[in-house]
Amino acid sequence: MPFDTLNTPALLLDKDVFEENCRVMQERVQEAEIKLRPHMKTAKALEAYHCATKDGFGGITVSTLAEADFFASGGVTDILYGVGIVPSKLSQAQRVQDKGVKLTLITDNPDAISLLDDEAKRLETTFPVLIEIDSGGRRGGVLANSQEFLNLAQAITASQCLSLEGVMTHAGHSYHVSTPEEIADIAEQEREAVVGASERLLKAGFPCPVVSAGSTPTAVFAKSYEGLTEIRPGVYMFGDVDQMFIGACKQNEIAATVLASVIGHNKTAKRLLIDAGGLALSKDISASEFSSHTGYGLVCWPDGDVIEELYVESVHQEHGLVASVSGDLPYDKFPVGSRLRILPIHTCMTCAGFSHYDVHSAEGELLGKWGRVNRW
Amino acid sequence: MPFDTLNTPALLLDKDVFEENCRVMQERVQEAEIKLRPHMKTAKALEAYHCATKDGFGGITVSTLAEADFFASGGVTDILYGVGIVPSKLSQAQRVQDKGVKLTLITDNPDAISLLDDEAKRLETTFPVLIEIDSGGRRGGVLANSQEFLNLAQAITASQCLSLEGVMTHAGHSYHVSTPEEIADIAEQEREAVVGASERLLKAGFPCPVVSAGSTPTAVFAKSYEGLTEIRPGVYMFGDVDQMFIGACKQNEIAATVLASVIGHNKTAKRLLIDAGGLALSKDISASEFSSHTGYGLVCWPDGDVIEELYVESVHQEHGLVASVSGDLPYDKFPVGSRLRILPIHTCMTCAGFSHYDVHSAEGELLGKWGRVNRW
Repeated sequence: MPFDTLNTPALLLDKDVFEENCRVMQERVQEAEIKLRPHMKTAKALEAYHCATKDGFGGITVSTLAEADFFASGGVTDILYGVGIVPSKLSQAQRVQDKGVKLTLITDNPDAISLLDDEAKRLETTFPVLIEIDSGGRRGGVLANSQEFLNLAQAITASQCLSLEGVMTHAGHSYHVSTPEEIADIAEQEREAVVGASERLLKAGFPCPVVSAGSTPTAVFAKSYEGLTEIRPGVYMFGDVDQMFIGACKQNEIAATVLASVIGHNKTAKRLLIDAGGLALSKDISASEFSSHTGYGLVCWPDGDVIEELYVESVHQEHGLVASVSGDLPYDKFPVGSRLRILPIHTCMTCAGFSHYDVHSAEGELLGKWGRVNRW
Repeated sequence: MPFDTLNTPALLLDKDVFEENCRVMQERVQEAEIKLRPHMKTAKALEAYHCATKDGFGGITVSTLAEADFFASGGVTDILYGVGIVPSKLSQAQRVQDKGVKLTLITDNPDAISLLDDEAKRLETTFPVLIEIDSGGRRGGVLANSQEFLNLAQAITASQCLSLEGVMTHAGHSYHVSTPEEIADIAEQEREAVVGASERLLKAGFPCPVVSAGSTPTAVFAKSYEGLTEIRPGVYMFGDVDQMFIGACKQNEIAATVLASVIGHNKTAKRLLIDAGGLALSKDISASEFSSHTGYGLVCWPDGDVIEELYVESVHQEHGLVASVSGDLPYDKFPVGSRLRILPIHTCMTCAGFSHYDVHSAEGELLGKWGRVNRW
């Protein structure tokens, strides 16, 4: 059987699928004549970086300074840290700069600018900064039409150690709709917000060389990228069950799966027990927004063929309970010790439970390990 | 300010609270004259082991063979691996035995016995085995009154390399009720199931030296432990918001918290943004079963005082969004760069995101780090 040399649970990565996902996105941005600055928060692996930036310009986005440091050590020289910066993190950021990196920060808070400037002064360094725009996701960002936005631009420009590089946004609300039309509408909302912000900056006399947007769904379904200089999708390299329901990938385009062993049959509860629980799969149930039979993952045979009707209905720390939609479970097809593969609901969360990927070919041949940089 | 030398997010552990939680449980089992075999799946740290087994017999429960190996290297000699065993894991189990450990396994599947026996034969070793009983949790286990149960006992006894040590159960359904009376009822159901199973074994002529039960809620609220030889709670060392709603701990008995920085204010959405998201807090929302205003964690000042009304309403990978129950948020009290502490919903899941605890005194003095053994 494929993968029988691996202990379970293990995080598998189909290299052929992964490479094709990377190739398709790179082709898309080249047609649109913008840069792809892939978000490495899902992959967190150097080999994944090389694949995702092949034929691209080489810059990336990260979600932690640990990632920034890791990719800097791996030779990456242009990194956007895409989470709001605070003064206490600037010394860690400087250590990344010291590895020869142009590290760009983001902010959305006028009150923080003088504190950031003071700390950068103390460290005797400077940082390029993007202003984060809220394009409807209601997470980080100021509204492009707000006075606060121009105040921010003014404060950054007036600082000694920060330089205004432009604007960025992330339309996180694109994860909560599921038709190409709805996602295309959000993509346009995302584009208009950040391009509108850049126009407002330029009109007020500020520089704005960078206009950055993007999520995987909006990258896939956008009808126009006009005015953007770059996009920052990340999960597209992998896909997952949630992206499948959104329509941003097909089931056979999901690159990462969790290999699990059947460890029991609870015939009273009509469940198969597997050794992939909440720590191996994560407790993310985002696809439940779109389907009542996805739970914590869909179930495949070891060769990757989906087993219709089965899903991981619940998880405990190290136990997953697999149910059948119809209620029927042919236990003899799943003896204790046999193996299954689980399609993750949300790849970013699932992969974070593992130290590395066990990389394999489409035929199930193991090709090696890709190490991940987890934590902060 | 306390903890200002730490980067965020960080996992804090109040040593005074932790030690008191350990002391109270040890006292409880000594009064009941049974053994405490603490489940180390929450703590996963050697210093925590020493604290939890102080004045106790020293044996532990683990949820992964990585934990078993880690604690074996730390000198533990009596370990119960409390997740259904499969043949492919016996070689890993043997490496734990080779460190001088009595490693007890569990099973609930008659068909697996001959495969386990064959593999143990191949490895030229033997394993003590407990039969897992389903006492109502509907996860692992056979019913105590089933024919399957006696078949299992017969198959283990007839094997060459497995020896029957007794029975064990875990009343996981005790997490889903919230009054002392309801939990006491489940504790009694748990006790009766596993003690009844042991009596059935003895009557049929099988040995049954071990009768093992326990979860934190049932350990706290059980009215009788009669017939049990040991209990296996784990989360009691830490407590969490879920245990607080169950009634198994008070808020000031929660030992682990996540230190986070305020990274933004979204005044449009009426949210504070913090740098503890789904990876730092986990996506566990189990306390939502009992309250609509707990989300992914409750919010404290850096000194540990709870801030009434605030809770982590939603999380993205590295962002947490803090909301106020009333909708009012005094942003000036939470400037960007200031810090908060988050009470975890489910400690087992939250701690798993971190490589270590930053251990501190009740006064907020940092005392050192306790390393964790994560993964498999």
